[in-house]
Amino acid sequence: MTDKSTTVARRRRYAILAEGSFGELPSKTAIGVIRYGRDTVVAVLDSTRAGRNASEWLGPAVDIPIVASLGEALAHRPDALLIGIAPPGGRLPPDWKRVITAAIEAGLDIVAGLHEFIGDDEDLAAAARQRGTEIIDHRRPPARMDVAQGRQHSANKRVVLTVGSDCAIGKMTVALELRRSALAQGLAAVFVPTGQTGMMIDGWGVAVDRLVSDFVQGTVEWLVEEGERMGDWVFVEGQGSIDHPAYSSVTLGLVHGARPHAMVLVHEPGRRFHHGWEAAESRIKPLSDLVGAYENVAALVAPSRVAAIALNTAALAEGDSRRVLAETEAETGLVADDPVRFGAERLLDALRACLE
Amino acid sequence: MTDKSTTVARRRRYAILAEGSFGELPSKTAIGVIRYGRDTVVAVLDSTRAGRNASEWLGPAVDIPIVASLGEALAHRPDALLIGIAPPGGRLPPDWKRVITAAIEAGLDIVAGLHEFIGDDEDLAAAARQRGTEIIDHRRPPARMDVAQGRQHSANKRVVLTVGSDCAIGKMTVALELRRSALAQGLAAVFVPTGQTGMMIDGWGVAVDRLVSDFVQGTVEWLVEEGERMGDWVFVEGQGSIDHPAYSSVTLGLVHGARPHAMVLVHEPGRRFHHGWEAAESRIKPLSDLVGAYENVAALVAPSRVAAIALNTAALAEGDSRRVLAETEAETGLVADDPVRFGAERLLDALRACLE
Repeated sequence: MTDKSTTVARRRRYAILAEGSFGELPSKTAIGVIRYGRDTVVAVLDSTRAGRNASEWLGPAVDIPIVASLGEALAHRPDALLIGIAPPGGRLPPDWKRVITAAIEAGLDIVAGLHEFIGDDEDLAAAARQRGTEIIDHRRPPARMDVAQGRQHSANKRVVLTVGSDCAIGKMTVALELRRSALAQGLAAVFVPTGQTGMMIDGWGVAVDRLVSDFVQGTVEWLVEEGERMGDWVFVEGQGSIDHPAYSSVTLGLVHGARPHAMVLVHEPGRRFHHGWEAAESRIKPLSDLVGAYENVAALVAPSRVAAIALNTAALAEGDSRRVLAETEAETGLVADDPVRFGAERLLDALRACLE
Repeated sequence: MTDKSTTVARRRRYAILAEGSFGELPSKTAIGVIRYGRDTVVAVLDSTRAGRNASEWLGPAVDIPIVASLGEALAHRPDALLIGIAPPGGRLPPDWKRVITAAIEAGLDIVAGLHEFIGDDEDLAAAARQRGTEIIDHRRPPARMDVAQGRQHSANKRVVLTVGSDCAIGKMTVALELRRSALAQGLAAVFVPTGQTGMMIDGWGVAVDRLVSDFVQGTVEWLVEEGERMGDWVFVEGQGSIDHPAYSSVTLGLVHGARPHAMVLVHEPGRRFHHGWEAAESRIKPLSDLVGAYENVAALVAPSRVAAIALNTAALAEGDSRRVLAETEAETGLVADDPVRFGAERLLDALRACLE
C-alpha cells in the first residue's frame, strides 16, 4: 500500500467542534465519529448545548461533556480538534478560524473534512508549522490520477454498496452496522470509507466527492481492491443518490467503480424531499422505483441487485417503526430493517442468501 | 461574467504538436481545432508525416504544412504551441518537454488541455516567466465551488445535449455542426464547450472531467446559464457515455446538470467496443437500448428525450452510409444523419419539431 490514503492513521483524543448543531444533521460527522470511531472523544464544543452530555443523544454508554469554549475542552486533554460539521459546499465558517487558531496554539492537531482545506489557509498553516502541530484535511484527494481499468473482483469476495434515496440519510451508518454484524458472525468484514466522516471513523479511505471527476471510478475501483485485500466481505460506503439533482454523478461513480455484487438501499421514512431541496420540491421517489433505478444503472456496466432495504426509523416510536418496516417489505418484496435500532443481522442474512 | 472561464480568449496563430498521430484518434484535438477553431493554424508538428499537408485529412479548403521539427514550424510565424493530443489519463509524455521548452524559448505561448498541467511543471513555468510567455492549461478548473441549485431554464431557450454510445465518438463535432446549421437558419445558436478541445475551439468553457466531482453538476448548470445569456439555442457538448465503465459519472453530471430539453445520440457505425476497452470486451449497446438508458437517467432529475441520432460514417462509402442511416432510422424510429457528411439540417429539423 503505497498511497497514504490506505495507511491507517494513529489514534487520537479528540475535542469535536460542533458549534450550534450537536445532535442535528449538520453535525453528523460528530455523531458518526463518537458512535463508530476508533479514536477517543473527550469533549464536544457547542456553546448552545454547554453543560449537557452527548449521552442524551447517543445513549448511556457514552459519557462526553459538551462545553462552551476551547479553554474548557482543553481541561479534558485532547490532542486534536476535529471539525465535526459538514456545511453545504464544505466551506469553513469564517468565525471558526479563531477557535482553530487557538487550538493550534494550544498544541492540538487539526482534523477536518471540508472542501476548503484548513492546510491551505496561510495563517493556519503558518501557525501549525510554528507550533509543530499537524493539519489533516481528509478531503484532500490522493495524488493518483488513474481512470478505471475494469478490474474484476477477486474470487470469493463479496462487495456490497450502500445506496440511498437521498444524501445524508445513513448510508455510512448502514455499512458500518453491516460490518459489525458480519464480524460478529465470524466473517472477515471490511468497511471502505468514501467520505470524510467514514475516513475519520476508520482511519483510511478517500472522499470521492473531492476527486477529479475523471478519476472517481478509477479511484473507487482501487479502494475496493484495497478492501478486498483486507477481508472477504467488503462494505462500501455509498454517497448521494442516483436521482439527486446535485450529487447523482458521484453516486454513479460509486456504482460503476465498485461494481458491487449487491446493494442495500437506505431510506428514512417520512423524508419527502431531497436534503436541502425542499424549496425546489425535489421529491424522493418511491422505494420500488429506486430499486429499479439502481439496478438499471448498475446493469449498464455490471449487473447488481438491491438485496435489502435499511430504514432509519429513529424518529418513530418502536411500534410505528415495526409497522413501517412491514409495509416496506410488502411494497418492495425485500427484507427491510433498521440496523441501528434492531441490528443488521436480517439485512446481512438477506445479503448472504443473495450472494452465497 | 466574473470568471475567466466565460471570458472569450484572444485569437492566436498555432503550431500544433501532434507527434506520431496526426489524423488519428489521439490527435482529435488537432483535427477539431483546425476544422472548427477561431484561431489560425500555421503548422502541424508530426515527424512521422513530415512533408505532407493537413488537407489530405481535412479536404482542399485546408492548407497547413506538416513539419518534422519546431525549427521548421517557427518559419511559419506561430505565436503559440498547442498540445494537440489527448493521451489516456491526460499525462504529458516526458520526451515532449524538450519541445515545449524550446517553444517557450522561441517566445511562444503554450496552450494545453492535459490533466497534468504544463504550468505546474516548475522548469516550464520558470522558463515561461523568464521569457514572458503565457502557459494556458484549459483543463485547470475554475475557482468556483458551487453545487447545483436546480436552476430552471429561461423562457424560450432550447438546451440540447449531445450524448454518445462511447467516448471519443464525435459529440463535440455534432454540437458544433448543429450550431452551424442553426446559425445558418437564423437562430441565435450557442456552443457550450465542456472539454479542452471545445474550449480551444470556442475560446471559453470548462473541462468538466477535471472538476471536483461534487461540483460537476453545479458547474454545468452555470455553464448552461452562461450559454442561455449568449443565445436561444444552446448546444452543450457531451462527454463520455452513460454506460462507459470509466467515464459514466461525468456523463451523468452533464445530463443532470444541463437538464437538456432534448438530446442527440452520437454513434459510429461499426465500433463494437468502448474506446480503450476492446480487451475487456466492454460492448457498445444497441442504439435503441441507449436511447432508453439516456431518457431513463435524465428522467430521474428532469425529463428529456433523445430527438435524433447522429452517426459518424466517415469510414463508409457514401452508398453504405445512406444504407446505415436508413437502417438506424428503422431501428430507432428517430431521424438519423451524419452532420459532417450531409449537414446537420435534418437533425436540427428533428430538434425543432420536438421542441418548438
